Amino acid sequence: MKLEMICTGEEVLAGQIVDTNAAWFSNTLMEQGVECQRRTTVGDRLEDLVAVFKERSTEADVILVNGGLGPTSDDLSTEAMALAKGEDLVENSLWRNRLESWFTRNGRVMAESNLKQALLPESAIMIDNPVGTACGFAVKLNRAWLFFTPGVPFEFKQMVKEQFIPFINERFEIAGDVSLRKYLTLGQGESSLADALEAIVLPEGLTIGYRTSMPHIEIKLFARGLSAISEMDNIEKQIRFLLGTAIVADNKKTLAEEIHGLLLGSGSSLSVAESCTGGMIASQLVAFAGSSSYFHQGLITYCNESKVKVLGVKAETLDYHGAVSIETVEEMANGARAILDSDYALATSGIAGPTGGTDNKPVGTVAIALATKGGVYSQMIKLPRRSRDLVRSLSTAVAFDMLRRALLGEAVIIDYGSISRFKK
Amino acid sequence: MKLEMICTGEEVLAGQIVDTNAAWFSNTLMEQGVECQRRTTVGDRLEDLVAVFKERSTEADVILVNGGLGPTSDDLSTEAMALAKGEDLVENSLWRNRLESWFTRNGRVMAESNLKQALLPESAIMIDNPVGTACGFAVKLNRAWLFFTPGVPFEFKQMVKEQFIPFINERFEIAGDVSLRKYLTLGQGESSLADALEAIVLPEGLTIGYRTSMPHIEIKLFARGLSAISEMDNIEKQIRFLLGTAIVADNKKTLAEEIHGLLLGSGSSLSVAESCTGGMIASQLVAFAGSSSYFHQGLITYCNESKVKVLGVKAETLDYHGAVSIETVEEMANGARAILDSDYALATSGIAGPTGGTDNKPVGTVAIALATKGGVYSQMIKLPRRSRDLVRSLSTAVAFDMLRRALLGEAVIIDYGSISRFKK
Repeated sequence: MKLEMICTGEEVLAGQIVDTNAAWFSNTLMEQGVECQRRTTVGDRLEDLVAVFKERSTEADVILVNGGLGPTSDDLSTEAMALAKGEDLVENSLWRNRLESWFTRNGRVMAESNLKQALLPESAIMIDNPVGTACGFAVKLNRAWLFFTPGVPFEFKQMVKEQFIPFINERFEIAGDVSLRKYLTLGQGESSLADALEAIVLPEGLTIGYRTSMPHIEIKLFARGLSAISEMDNIEKQIRFLLGTAIVADNKKTLAEEIHGLLLGSGSSLSVAESCTGGMIASQLVAFAGSSSYFHQGLITYCNESKVKVLGVKAETLDYHGAVSIETVEEMANGARAILDSDYALATSGIAGPTGGTDNKPVGTVAIALATKGGVYSQMIKLPRRSRDLVRSLSTAVAFDMLRRALLGEAVIIDYGSISRFKK
Repeated sequence: MKLEMICTGEEVLAGQIVDTNAAWFSNTLMEQGVECQRRTTVGDRLEDLVAVFKERSTEADVILVNGGLGPTSDDLSTEAMALAKGEDLVENSLWRNRLESWFTRNGRVMAESNLKQALLPESAIMIDNPVGTACGFAVKLNRAWLFFTPGVPFEFKQMVKEQFIPFINERFEIAGDVSLRKYLTLGQGESSLADALEAIVLPEGLTIGYRTSMPHIEIKLFARGLSAISEMDNIEKQIRFLLGTAIVADNKKTLAEEIHGLLLGSGSSLSVAESCTGGMIASQLVAFAGSSSYFHQGLITYCNESKVKVLGVKAETLDYHGAVSIETVEEMANGARAILDSDYALATSGIAGPTGGTDNKPVGTVAIALATKGGVYSQMIKLPRRSRDLVRSLSTAVAFDMLRRALLGEAVIIDYGSISRFKK
């Protein structure tokens, strides 16, 4: 079964709305084992709609059409479908009755324009919409079933789940068995990850994909069919062997999510002292409900005086080694940890740019320390030619990875392929 | 000029990524007076790519193609274009040199797979990418110029602005007289803003649009044609009159950007003490280069002991009034301000949810204070039925607005239509 989607609406095409219906639809159908093979987004021009319905109907078996079923003059999907099919619009008396009782029930007077919503192309099958005034409908044109849905997200989602998926299941053979695993990586570029994994011979039905989500690259292992699914453990083992420490989390969107889970599970507490990352470490953790059970405090000591007064960094250390130094960041971490005797404290101090670098410490130089009850670990990394935002987010990720490794009892400081380090 | 966009990539088609590049592109071109008339999204299958390039090239004058220029095996846009055009791929020596020196400069070894990125269809015009390893290129096929861009958002955006827009301006007559003004609002819903502005009679060529970008709604005044542009001042005056204090910034993406500019201009310094906002205030400011000139420190005193030890909040205040109270948040603001004698200090303490509320202080209760050299201002707001993230981002926005108004010498505490307040 070849599935496509047509999204309509000027505000979607013009980018005033980011089309979350489309992403949700593809994802939901993928979970049913059906890939959406093409998505076409058009505006509200009648001739564009007619053209795209005719054109795609010769290529696909099923086309989900979203939007344009409302009562206003720029809702043209129904009229366009009738034109494409060469049919008249006829009033669906069932839906007219439903509309009238819907307005009565809600104590509202039905506007004349709503009557339009009961008009369907002559050959259309009406599709119920229990939560809105726009019914859906399906029309067969050329090779394809075109299935029309309202744009309002909750009406759309309900109709897809309760009507569209049964509709295609009745008419087509759906290959249902699919499975997806995701691995979050840090510190290697997409090409070097791909080179490393090239040695893997993928059985039929398994694919490896990459998605850049800075500062991470996510690796996706997708299996279609029971035989492919049964090979996943084996392929995952090979991926882990080939990538080693580059994998920092499984099936998590961010490293912060992984840390949140580990800290919740460990019962350990955390303080954070941030300079260049400026609250990124703290705010990524505080975004999770429940973080108050382990997160003591985040001290963004941006100026030198604050490092001295709040964290107890020695003025001599700042004078002699500078704010961006192993010595300073270790004192920051130790100071932040000591205030409430937290189990762990992370600290960062660096030059995020775009200006402020020197010959010895260019933009992208970042010192990071992890203080524990057993001692302090630190490193100074080089992130040249990265944007201010990327220097900050990469530093945050490296800091999280140091803590993650400590929580797992592994070596805290490791080499990252694409991130070099100042020698001590 | 008929413009279309082709988005490629399994992760975009499959909805693992919401396609923000597409929305950004349409928006940006609209600001240049050019409408994108169709968007087609396809995956990584070679035959689908070839088909869509051939098909759309007979319909459009210019097609912006996004994605699929990376080094891995699922990056197939270049190969597909060569097939569609019936040309060989040839190595572009200029780009090969650029790649090699890019890797050398970054102290990294170029992977074999990166060489692929120097292969272009024979007739392609290379398009420079100063910020990444994938160059763009343009090929003429049938009626259309196809212009290929990388999927990485910051590379994509830079290439559109610096290369694509000049490219089309050189080759086509662009209806150039358009103008756009944006107003950032806080504290009113889209329908109440729209109701308020309904009274305005818009001259031909002027439109008012709304874009939700939580916690803000942005109002866009768009003019096409010189006569419409000449009416903008007049319409803007009416918008300001009708919306009053709901407008918090002009032509800024966020309130943080407005605050950054005001603080840079004023020479005033700022400290921040955050509890429920957890670093959101600080990190939004530190995101801007130059913030070190005014930003002293951000103290995320998440647990009570931290409020006492770091900010000097009295234990009795916490015991008697609770952490989420006017009294506590005022002591937090005063304490944060006093450490380095900053000109201003903002403080927040609230219940972000989803749990932790009580009858007296339900989820969404947030106390916010602004300490100045002349005294402290505070309020406790109610944000019921909002997500954790929205409680935090709305609280951040209200805190910024208090500071903004203080910096402008206006009343610090005002009423927001959709945000109610506890009486003192």
